[in-house]
Amino acid sequence: MEGIHLVEEALAADLHVEMLVKSEDAPWLPFDIGAQRVVEVKASIFEALSDTESPQGWLAVCLMSQQPKMGSGNVLLIDGIRDPGNMGTIIRTAEAVGMSGIYVSPDTVDVYNGKVIRATQGALFHIPIVAYDLEDAIRSLIEEGKVIYGTSMHAEASYMKAAPRESYALLLGNEAEGISPPLLRMVDKTVSIPIVGNAESLNVAVAAGVLMYGWLNHD
Amino acid sequence: MEGIHLVEEALAADLHVEMLVKSEDAPWLPFDIGAQRVVEVKASIFEALSDTESPQGWLAVCLMSQQPKMGSGNVLLIDGIRDPGNMGTIIRTAEAVGMSGIYVSPDTVDVYNGKVIRATQGALFHIPIVAYDLEDAIRSLIEEGKVIYGTSMHAEASYMKAAPRESYALLLGNEAEGISPPLLRMVDKTVSIPIVGNAESLNVAVAAGVLMYGWLNHD
Repeated sequence: MEGIHLVEEALAADLHVEMLVKSEDAPWLPFDIGAQRVVEVKASIFEALSDTESPQGWLAVCLMSQQPKMGSGNVLLIDGIRDPGNMGTIIRTAEAVGMSGIYVSPDTVDVYNGKVIRATQGALFHIPIVAYDLEDAIRSLIEEGKVIYGTSMHAEASYMKAAPRESYALLLGNEAEGISPPLLRMVDKTVSIPIVGNAESLNVAVAAGVLMYGWLNHD
Repeated sequence: MEGIHLVEEALAADLHVEMLVKSEDAPWLPFDIGAQRVVEVKASIFEALSDTESPQGWLAVCLMSQQPKMGSGNVLLIDGIRDPGNMGTIIRTAEAVGMSGIYVSPDTVDVYNGKVIRATQGALFHIPIVAYDLEDAIRSLIEEGKVIYGTSMHAEASYMKAAPRESYALLLGNEAEGISPPLLRMVDKTVSIPIVGNAESLNVAVAAGVLMYGWLNHD
Protein backbone atom coordinates (compact mmCIF):
# COMPACT_ATOMS: atom_id res chain seq x y z
CA MET A 1 0.00 0.00 0.00
CA GLU A 2 1.81 3.07 -1.22
CA GLY A 3 1.41 6.70 -0.25
CA ILE A 4 0.58 8.53 2.95
CA HIS A 5 -3.21 8.31 2.63
CA LEU A 6 -3.21 4.55 1.96
CA VAL A 7 -0.75 3.88 4.82
CA GLU A 8 -3.10 5.76 7.13
CA GLU A 9 -6.09 3.79 5.81
CA ALA A 10 -4.25 0.48 6.18
CA LEU A 11 -3.44 1.21 9.83
CA ALA A 12 -6.97 2.46 10.56
CA ALA A 13 -8.52 -0.62 8.92
CA ASP A 14 -6.70 -2.89 11.32
CA LEU A 15 -5.08 -4.92 8.54
CA HIS A 16 -2.16 -7.17 9.39
CA VAL A 17 0.61 -4.68 8.57
CA GLU A 18 3.99 -6.45 8.37
CA MET A 19 6.09 -3.30 8.28
CA LEU A 20 6.19 0.29 7.12
CA VAL A 21 8.91 1.32 4.67
CA LYS A 22 10.18 4.90 4.74
CA SER A 23 12.46 6.62 2.27
CA GLU A 24 15.41 8.35 3.97
CA ASP A 25 14.36 11.72 2.57
CA ALA A 26 10.66 11.51 3.50
CA PRO A 27 9.34 13.51 6.47
CA TRP A 28 7.79 11.59 9.35
CA LEU A 29 4.10 10.69 9.10
CA PRO A 30 1.63 13.28 10.45
CA PHE A 31 -0.34 10.65 12.43
CA ASP A 32 0.30 8.05 15.14
CA ILE A 33 1.60 4.69 13.86
CA GLY A 34 1.57 2.90 17.23
CA ALA A 35 4.24 0.22 17.61
CA GLN A 36 4.59 -0.51 13.87
CA ARG A 37 8.03 -1.55 12.68
CA VAL A 38 9.57 1.04 10.34
CA VAL A 39 12.35 0.16 7.91
CA GLU A 40 14.18 3.17 6.48
CA VAL A 41 15.75 2.73 3.03
CA LYS A 42 17.80 4.82 0.64
CA ALA A 43 15.85 7.01 -1.79
CA SER A 44 17.06 4.94 -4.74
CA ILE A 45 15.76 1.75 -3.13
CA PHE A 46 12.42 3.36 -2.34
CA GLU A 47 12.10 4.41 -5.96
CA ALA A 48 12.73 0.82 -7.04
CA LEU A 49 10.01 -0.42 -4.64
CA SER A 50 7.53 2.24 -5.72
CA ASP A 51 5.35 2.10 -8.81
CA THR A 52 4.34 5.75 -8.84
CA GLU A 53 6.11 8.52 -10.70
CA SER A 54 6.38 10.83 -7.69
CA PRO A 55 6.65 8.55 -4.63
CA GLN A 56 5.60 10.06 -1.30
CA GLY A 57 8.31 8.10 0.54
CA TRP A 58 6.07 5.79 2.59
CA LEU A 59 4.55 2.39 1.95
CA ALA A 60 3.01 -0.37 4.06
CA VAL A 61 3.59 -4.10 3.52
CA CYS A 62 0.33 -5.87 4.43
CA LEU A 63 -0.90 -9.46 4.35
CA MET A 64 -3.63 -10.15 1.81
CA SER A 65 -6.82 -11.30 3.52
CA GLN A 66 -7.08 -14.96 2.52
CA GLN A 67 -10.77 -15.79 2.87
CA PRO A 68 -12.75 -12.60 3.30
CA LYS A 69 -16.24 -13.36 4.57
CA MET A 70 -18.92 -12.26 2.12
CA GLY A 71 -21.95 -10.54 3.68
CA SER A 72 -25.54 -11.52 2.92
CA GLY A 73 -26.63 -8.30 1.18
CA ASN A 74 -26.24 -7.17 -2.41
CA VAL A 75 -23.10 -8.20 -4.30
CA LEU A 76 -21.23 -7.30 -7.47
CA LEU A 77 -19.91 -9.83 -9.98
CA ILE A 78 -17.04 -8.57 -12.16
CA ASP A 79 -16.53 -10.39 -15.46
CA GLY A 80 -13.16 -9.51 -16.93
CA ILE A 81 -12.71 -5.80 -16.27
CA ARG A 82 -9.19 -4.91 -17.45
CA ASP A 83 -8.57 -1.26 -16.63
CA PRO A 84 -7.15 -0.81 -13.10
CA GLY A 85 -8.67 2.67 -12.75
CA ASN A 86 -12.13 1.32 -13.59
CA MET A 87 -11.74 -1.63 -11.21
CA GLY A 88 -10.52 0.52 -8.32
CA THR A 89 -13.27 3.07 -8.86
CA ILE A 90 -15.92 0.30 -8.88
CA ILE A 91 -14.56 -1.02 -5.55
CA ARG A 92 -14.64 2.52 -4.10
CA THR A 93 -18.26 3.05 -5.18
CA ALA A 94 -19.43 -0.43 -4.11
CA GLU A 95 -18.04 0.11 -0.62
CA ALA A 96 -19.56 3.58 -0.41
CA VAL A 97 -23.06 2.40 -1.41
CA GLY A 98 -22.95 -0.47 1.09
CA MET A 99 -22.56 -3.58 -1.11
CA SER A 100 -21.76 -6.75 0.85
CA GLY A 101 -18.95 -7.96 -1.38
CA ILE A 102 -17.49 -8.43 -4.84
CA TYR A 103 -16.74 -11.61 -6.80
CA VAL A 104 -14.14 -11.14 -9.55
CA SER A 105 -13.50 -13.56 -12.42
CA PRO A 106 -9.96 -14.92 -12.79
CA ASP A 107 -9.34 -12.81 -15.94
CA THR A 108 -10.20 -9.55 -14.16
CA VAL A 109 -7.28 -7.20 -13.38
CA ASP A 110 -5.53 -8.12 -10.10
CA VAL A 111 -7.20 -6.14 -7.31
CA TYR A 112 -3.79 -5.90 -5.58
CA ASN A 113 -2.38 -4.05 -8.61
CA GLY A 114 -1.02 -0.72 -7.29
CA LYS A 115 -3.19 1.36 -9.64
CA VAL A 116 -6.31 -0.49 -8.51
CA ILE A 117 -5.45 0.05 -4.84
CA ARG A 118 -4.85 3.76 -5.37
CA ALA A 119 -8.14 4.20 -7.27
CA THR A 120 -10.04 2.52 -4.39
CA GLN A 121 -8.79 5.30 -2.05
CA GLY A 122 -8.59 2.68 0.69
CA ALA A 123 -12.06 1.18 0.18
CA LEU A 124 -10.34 -2.14 -0.64
CA PHE A 125 -9.80 -2.62 3.12
CA HIS A 126 -13.51 -2.35 3.92
CA ILE A 127 -15.26 -4.67 1.46
CA PRO A 128 -14.75 -8.43 0.90
CA ILE A 129 -13.41 -9.25 -2.58
CA VAL A 130 -13.12 -12.87 -3.73
CA ALA A 131 -11.59 -14.20 -6.97
CA TYR A 132 -13.97 -16.98 -8.02
CA ASP A 133 -15.39 -18.86 -10.97
CA LEU A 134 -18.41 -16.67 -11.72
CA GLU A 135 -20.62 -19.53 -12.94
CA ASP A 136 -20.18 -21.21 -9.54
CA ALA A 137 -20.73 -17.92 -7.73
CA ILE A 138 -23.96 -17.26 -9.64
CA ARG A 139 -25.27 -20.78 -8.86
CA SER A 140 -24.67 -20.19 -5.13
CA LEU A 141 -26.26 -16.74 -5.24
CA ILE A 142 -29.36 -18.13 -6.97
CA GLU A 143 -29.61 -20.80 -4.25
CA GLU A 144 -29.45 -18.02 -1.65
CA GLY A 145 -32.48 -16.47 -3.35
CA LYS A 146 -30.74 -13.53 -5.00
CA VAL A 147 -31.95 -12.12 -8.31
CA ILE A 148 -29.11 -11.87 -10.85
CA TYR A 149 -29.02 -8.65 -12.88
CA GLY A 150 -26.78 -8.00 -15.85
CA THR A 151 -26.22 -5.01 -18.12
CA SER A 152 -26.80 -5.36 -21.84
CA MET A 153 -27.24 -3.05 -24.82
CA HIS A 154 -30.17 -5.31 -25.83
CA ALA A 155 -31.76 -5.30 -22.40
CA GLU A 156 -35.37 -6.07 -21.56
CA ALA A 157 -35.83 -2.91 -19.48
CA SER A 158 -34.38 0.39 -18.37
CA TYR A 159 -32.74 -0.03 -14.96
CA MET A 160 -35.23 2.25 -13.19
CA LYS A 161 -38.21 0.21 -14.39
CA ALA A 162 -36.61 -3.02 -13.18
CA ALA A 163 -35.29 -1.90 -9.79
CA PRO A 164 -34.77 -4.97 -7.56
CA ARG A 165 -37.21 -5.43 -4.66
CA GLU A 166 -35.06 -8.01 -2.90
CA SER A 167 -31.39 -8.67 -2.46
CA TYR A 168 -29.59 -8.72 -5.81
CA ALA A 169 -26.35 -9.55 -7.55
CA LEU A 170 -25.22 -7.20 -10.33
CA LEU A 171 -22.99 -8.65 -13.06
CA LEU A 172 -20.73 -6.18 -14.91
CA GLY A 173 -18.85 -7.13 -18.07
CA ASN A 174 -15.56 -6.30 -19.71
CA GLU A 175 -15.08 -2.74 -21.08
CA ALA A 176 -15.08 -3.78 -24.75
CA GLU A 177 -16.93 -7.10 -24.88
CA GLY A 178 -19.55 -6.77 -22.14
CA ILE A 179 -20.71 -9.85 -20.24
CA SER A 180 -19.47 -13.14 -21.71
CA PRO A 181 -22.28 -15.19 -23.34
CA PRO A 182 -22.23 -18.20 -20.90
CA LEU A 183 -22.68 -15.84 -17.96
CA LEU A 184 -25.27 -13.70 -19.73
CA ARG A 185 -27.43 -16.82 -20.13
CA MET A 186 -27.47 -17.23 -16.32
CA VAL A 187 -28.79 -13.70 -15.70
CA ASP A 188 -32.42 -13.31 -14.50
CA LYS A 189 -32.93 -9.76 -15.78
CA THR A 190 -30.96 -7.67 -18.24
CA VAL A 191 -31.12 -3.91 -17.80
CA SER A 192 -29.81 -0.91 -19.70
CA ILE A 193 -29.11 2.70 -18.84
CA PRO A 194 -30.95 5.08 -21.21
CA ILE A 195 -28.74 7.03 -23.58
CA VAL A 196 -30.23 10.37 -24.68
CA GLY A 197 -27.25 11.55 -26.72
CA ASN A 198 -25.04 9.93 -29.34
CA ALA A 199 -22.85 7.85 -27.02
CA GLU A 200 -22.89 4.11 -27.56
CA SER A 201 -22.36 3.34 -23.90
CA LEU A 202 -21.13 4.68 -20.57
CA ASN A 203 -17.81 4.03 -18.89
CA VAL A 204 -18.27 0.81 -16.87
CA ALA A 205 -17.36 2.43 -13.52
CA VAL A 206 -19.91 5.21 -14.14
CA ALA A 207 -22.53 2.64 -15.18
CA ALA A 208 -21.88 0.68 -11.98
CA GLY A 209 -22.36 3.85 -9.90
CA VAL A 210 -25.56 4.85 -11.73
CA LEU A 211 -27.08 1.38 -11.18
CA MET A 212 -26.04 0.86 -7.54
CA TYR A 213 -27.11 4.36 -6.46
CA GLY A 214 -30.23 4.25 -8.64
CA TRP A 215 -31.24 1.08 -6.79
CA LEU A 216 -30.35 2.33 -3.32
CA ASN A 217 -33.37 2.83 -1.12
CA HIS A 218 -33.30 6.60 -0.74
CA ASP A 219 -35.99 6.92 1.96
CA MET B 1 -7.76 12.61 -32.69
CA GLU B 2 -5.83 9.39 -32.47
CA GLY B 3 -6.92 5.82 -33.06
CA ILE B 4 -9.30 4.13 -35.47
CA HIS B 5 -12.45 4.61 -33.40
CA LEU B 6 -11.85 8.34 -32.87
CA VAL B 7 -11.01 8.89 -36.56
CA GLU B 8 -14.32 7.23 -37.44
CA GLU B 9 -16.16 9.39 -34.89
CA ALA B 10 -14.48 12.57 -36.13
CA LEU B 11 -15.55 11.86 -39.72
CA ALA B 12 -19.08 10.88 -38.67
CA ALA B 13 -19.45 14.02 -36.53
CA ASP B 14 -18.81 16.21 -39.55
CA LEU B 15 -15.93 18.08 -37.89
CA HIS B 16 -13.62 20.13 -40.05
CA VAL B 17 -10.98 17.42 -40.62
CA GLU B 18 -7.79 18.94 -42.07
CA MET B 19 -6.14 15.65 -42.93
CA LEU B 20 -5.75 12.04 -41.92
CA VAL B 21 -2.27 10.76 -41.03
CA LYS B 22 -1.46 7.09 -41.64
CA SER B 23 1.58 5.16 -40.52
CA GLU B 24 3.25 3.29 -43.41
CA ASP B 25 2.74 -0.04 -41.59
CA ALA B 26 -0.94 0.45 -40.67
CA PRO B 27 -3.64 -1.39 -42.63
CA TRP B 28 -6.24 0.69 -44.48
CA LEU B 29 -9.28 1.86 -42.52
CA PRO B 30 -12.27 -0.52 -42.52
CA PHE B 31 -14.74 2.28 -43.35
CA ASP B 32 -15.28 4.89 -46.07
CA ILE B 33 -13.30 8.11 -45.63
CA GLY B 34 -14.79 9.98 -48.58
CA ALA B 35 -12.44 12.49 -50.22
CA GLN B 36 -10.32 13.11 -47.11
CA ARG B 37 -6.65 13.87 -47.69
CA VAL B 38 -4.37 11.12 -46.33
CA VAL B 39 -0.71 11.73 -45.53
CA GLU B 40 1.36 8.58 -45.10
CA VAL B 41 4.39 8.84 -42.80
CA LYS B 42 7.18 6.54 -41.63
CA ALA B 43 6.45 4.44 -38.54
CA SER B 44 9.08 6.35 -36.54
CA ILE B 45 7.40 9.66 -37.40
CA PHE B 46 3.97 8.33 -36.48
CA GLU B 47 5.33 7.22 -33.12
CA ALA B 48 6.67 10.72 -32.53
CA LEU B 49 3.24 12.21 -33.37
CA SER B 50 1.38 9.73 -31.20
CA ASP B 51 0.95 9.95 -27.46
CA THR B 52 -0.20 6.38 -26.91
CA GLU B 53 2.03 3.44 -26.07
CA SER B 54 0.65 1.20 -28.81
CA PRO B 55 -0.38 3.52 -31.67
CA GLN B 56 -2.99 2.16 -34.09
CA GLY B 57 -1.35 3.95 -37.00
CA TRP B 58 -4.12 6.46 -37.78
CA LEU B 59 -4.90 9.95 -36.55
CA ALA B 60 -7.03 12.86 -37.73
CA VAL B 61 -6.02 16.53 -37.58
CA CYS B 62 -9.17 18.55 -36.84
CA LEU B 63 -9.97 22.21 -36.24
CA MET B 64 -11.09 23.03 -32.71
CA SER B 65 -14.59 24.45 -32.71
CA GLN B 66 -14.11 28.09 -31.77
CA GLN B 67 -17.45 29.19 -30.38
CA PRO B 68 -19.63 26.17 -29.78
CA LYS B 69 -23.24 27.15 -29.28
CA MET B 70 -24.51 26.19 -25.84
CA GLY B 71 -28.03 24.73 -25.75
CA SER B 72 -30.74 25.98 -23.40
CA GLY B 73 -31.10 22.81 -21.29
CA ASN B 74 -29.13 21.57 -18.29
CA VAL B 75 -25.42 22.34 -18.15
CA LEU B 76 -22.33 21.26 -16.23
CA LEU B 77 -19.80 23.64 -14.68
CA ILE B 78 -16.35 22.13 -14.10
CA ASP B 79 -14.21 23.85 -11.46
CA GLY B 80 -10.60 22.69 -11.76
CA ILE B 81 -10.80 18.96 -12.50
CA ARG B 82 -7.21 17.80 -13.12
CA ASP B 83 -7.32 14.14 -14.05
CA PRO B 84 -7.78 13.65 -17.82
CA GLY B 85 -9.54 10.30 -17.34
CA ASN B 86 -12.08 11.88 -14.99
CA MET B 87 -12.64 14.83 -17.34
CA GLY B 88 -13.10 12.65 -20.42
CA THR B 89 -15.45 10.31 -18.58
CA ILE B 90 -17.56 13.26 -17.37
CA ILE B 91 -17.85 14.55 -20.96
CA ARG B 92 -18.86 11.04 -22.13
CA THR B 93 -21.57 10.76 -19.46
CA ALA B 94 -22.85 14.34 -19.90
CA GLU B 95 -23.30 13.76 -23.63
CA ALA B 96 -25.01 10.41 -23.02
CA VAL B 97 -27.51 11.82 -20.51
CA GLY B 98 -28.39 14.73 -22.81
CA MET B 99 -26.79 17.75 -21.11
CA SER B 100 -26.79 20.91 -23.28
CA GLY B 101 -23.18 21.87 -22.68
CA ILE B 102 -20.22 22.15 -20.34
CA TYR B 103 -18.40 25.24 -19.02
CA VAL B 104 -14.86 24.53 -17.82
CA SER B 105 -12.75 26.83 -15.64
CA PRO B 106 -9.35 27.93 -17.02
CA ASP B 107 -7.49 25.70 -14.50
CA THR B 108 -9.34 22.56 -15.59
CA VAL B 109 -7.31 20.02 -17.61
CA ASP B 110 -7.24 20.88 -21.35
CA VAL B 111 -10.18 19.07 -22.97
CA TYR B 112 -8.03 18.63 -26.10
CA ASN B 113 -5.48 16.61 -24.09
CA GLY B 114 -5.16 13.21 -25.82
CA LYS B 115 -6.11 11.27 -22.69
CA VAL B 116 -9.26 13.36 -22.24
CA ILE B 117 -10.27 12.82 -25.88
CA ARG B 118 -9.77 9.06 -25.64
CA ALA B 119 -11.78 8.83 -22.41
CA THR B 120 -14.68 10.70 -24.06
CA GLN B 121 -14.91 7.89 -26.65
CA GLY B 122 -15.84 10.53 -29.21
CA ALA B 123 -18.53 12.27 -27.13
CA LEU B 124 -16.39 15.43 -27.30
CA PHE B 125 -17.66 15.94 -30.87
CA HIS B 126 -21.32 15.98 -29.81
CA ILE B 127 -21.53 18.38 -26.86
CA PRO B 128 -20.53 22.07 -26.68
CA ILE B 129 -17.64 22.73 -24.27
CA VAL B 130 -16.57 26.28 -23.45
CA ALA B 131 -13.62 27.44 -21.34
CA TYR B 132 -14.99 30.37 -19.34
CA ASP B 133 -14.71 32.27 -16.11
CA LEU B 134 -17.16 30.32 -13.99
CA GLU B 135 -18.33 33.31 -11.92
CA ASP B 136 -19.42 35.01 -15.15
CA ALA B 137 -20.99 31.78 -16.41
CA ILE B 138 -22.99 31.34 -13.19
CA ARG B 139 -24.23 34.94 -13.33
CA SER B 140 -25.51 34.40 -16.89
CA LEU B 141 -27.11 31.08 -15.98
CA ILE B 142 -28.92 32.66 -13.01
CA GLU B 143 -30.23 35.39 -15.34
CA GLU B 144 -31.55 32.66 -17.64
CA GLY B 145 -33.48 31.29 -14.67
CA LYS B 146 -31.39 28.21 -14.00
CA VAL B 147 -30.99 26.82 -10.49
CA ILE B 148 -27.31 26.32 -9.60
CA TYR B 149 -26.51 23.06 -7.80
CA GLY B 150 -23.17 22.19 -6.24
CA THR B 151 -21.83 19.13 -4.45
CA SER B 152 -20.54 19.46 -0.91
CA MET B 153 -19.71 17.12 1.96
CA HIS B 154 -21.61 19.57 4.21
CA ALA B 155 -24.63 19.74 1.94
CA GLU B 156 -28.15 20.79 2.90
CA ALA B 157 -29.76 17.72 1.34
CA SER B 158 -29.26 14.35 -0.26
CA TYR B 159 -29.40 14.71 -4.04
CA MET B 160 -32.59 12.65 -4.36
CA LYS B 161 -34.49 14.90 -1.95
CA ALA B 162 -33.41 18.00 -3.84
CA ALA B 163 -33.95 16.86 -7.42
CA PRO B 164 -34.34 19.91 -9.68
CA ARG B 165 -37.81 20.60 -11.09
CA GLU B 166 -36.58 23.06 -13.69
CA SER B 167 -33.54 23.44 -15.84
CA TYR B 168 -30.36 23.29 -13.75
CA ALA B 169 -26.61 23.87 -13.77
CA LEU B 170 -24.48 21.39 -11.82
CA LEU B 171 -21.13 22.62 -10.51
CA LEU B 172 -18.45 19.96 -9.89
CA GLY B 173 -15.24 20.69 -8.01
CA ASN B 174 -11.62 19.60 -8.10
CA GLU B 175 -10.82 15.99 -7.06
CA ALA B 176 -9.01 16.97 -3.84
CA GLU B 177 -10.34 20.39 -2.91
CA GLY B 178 -13.96 20.30 -4.10
CA ILE B 179 -15.62 23.50 -5.27
CA SER B 180 -13.61 26.67 -4.63
CA PRO B 181 -15.15 28.91 -1.91
CA PRO B 182 -16.04 31.93 -4.11
CA LEU B 183 -18.01 29.68 -6.47
CA LEU B 184 -19.61 27.69 -3.64
CA ARG B 185 -21.07 30.96 -2.32
CA MET B 186 -22.88 31.44 -5.66
CA VAL B 187 -24.59 28.02 -5.51
CA ASP B 188 -28.36 27.93 -4.84
CA LYS B 189 -28.47 24.40 -3.42
CA THR B 190 -25.73 22.13 -2.17
CA VAL B 191 -26.35 18.39 -2.38
CA SER B 192 -24.52 15.28 -1.28
CA ILE B 193 -24.58 11.64 -2.30
CA PRO B 194 -25.26 9.37 0.69
CA ILE B 195 -22.32 7.22 1.78
CA VAL B 196 -23.36 3.98 3.50
CA GLY B 197 -19.85 2.55 3.94
CA ASN B 198 -16.55 3.95 5.17
CA ALA B 199 -15.59 5.90 2.03
CA GLU B 200 -15.08 9.64 2.45
CA SER B 201 -16.31 10.42 -1.03
CA LEU B 202 -16.91 9.07 -4.52
CA ASN B 203 -14.74 9.50 -7.58
CA VAL B 204 -15.86 12.78 -9.21
CA ALA B 205 -16.78 11.15 -12.55
CA VAL B 206 -18.92 8.56 -10.76
CA ALA B 207 -20.54 11.29 -8.64
CA ALA B 208 -21.34 13.25 -11.81
CA GLY B 209 -22.98 10.17 -13.34
CA VAL B 210 -25.00 9.38 -10.21
CA LEU B 211 -26.33 12.95 -10.03
CA MET B 212 -27.11 13.48 -13.73
CA TYR B 213 -28.81 10.08 -14.09
CA GLY B 214 -30.52 10.38 -10.71
CA TRP B 215 -32.04 13.64 -11.91
CA LEU B 216 -32.99 12.40 -15.37
CA ASN B 217 -36.71 12.17 -15.87
CA HIS B 218 -37.14 8.41 -16.16
CA ASP B 219 -40.83 8.35 -17.19
